Amino acid sequence: MAAEDKHALEEGLEFTPRFDAAGLIPVIASDADGGGVLMFAFANAAALQATLDTGEAHFWSRSRNKIWRKGEESGNVLDVVDMRTDCDQDVLWLTVRVRGGGVACHTGRKSCFYRRLVRRDDGSWGLALDAPHT
Amino acid sequence: MAAEDKHALEEGLEFTPRFDAAGLIPVIASDADGGGVLMFAFANAAALQATLDTGEAHFWSRSRNKIWRKGEESGNVLDVVDMRTDCDQDVLWLTVRVRGGGVACHTGRKSCFYRRLVRRDDGSWGLALDAPHT
Repeated sequence: MAAEDKHALEEGLEFTPRFDAAGLIPVIASDADGGGVLMFAFANAAALQATLDTGEAHFWSRSRNKIWRKGEESGNVLDVVDMRTDCDQDVLWLTVRVRGGGVACHTGRKSCFYRRLVRRDDGSWGLALDAPHT
Repeated sequence: MAAEDKHALEEGLEFTPRFDAAGLIPVIASDADGGGVLMFAFANAAALQATLDTGEAHFWSRSRNKIWRKGEESGNVLDVVDMRTDCDQDVLWLTVRVRGGGVACHTGRKSCFYRRLVRRDDGSWGLALDAPHT
């Protein structure tokens, strides 16, 4: 990338999101009322546009191969409060409020990150159920 | 995936991280002292193992094609305070404390997410410089 392009990408005020070879961009969704990460997914250009147009988080479902309005079945729609991109514009970070029951994870938990890595006595790593502070 | 495998993946306490076709897993790093997202990168199995072994965040640099100990040049090493995985164990979330100058972004800012999406008067979307609350 030419130096002026890199400068524009990093310091400019044009939103020029960069999608990967599969046409996707990573999206982090965190909780407006606690800050913790609720979920992570990918968006394609159409899902991103739907998020911008509606203020509700849309993703690309790689398993179902379709745009996915988060909460379309559960009612736990994610209302976007703040939306950011990173230095090289290839990641999005949404701060959201979860509508409905406040549950962002399909397992029924608020956050998908309900397990913490813990070191066991034998030195191996396992998981412990432990809700994040969100 | 068989139902029992899905159940073990989602509810079990075995850490069985799932890497993508390129051997990578997305890693979110957020600030232990404020909660905001600092950066996002990918790790391969060796970078993940180095993170577990050292307590310092390691990633896989796709541009340099090598393991990258964050802060190895800048001194802004990320000390891992908490480490989590999500429901289907294909994402990692690190809560970190930034050593040195407390700067996680190569642009010299604390967080890589220093630009917020803003809707302009003409309906298009641009960016505004605006540090997140981290």
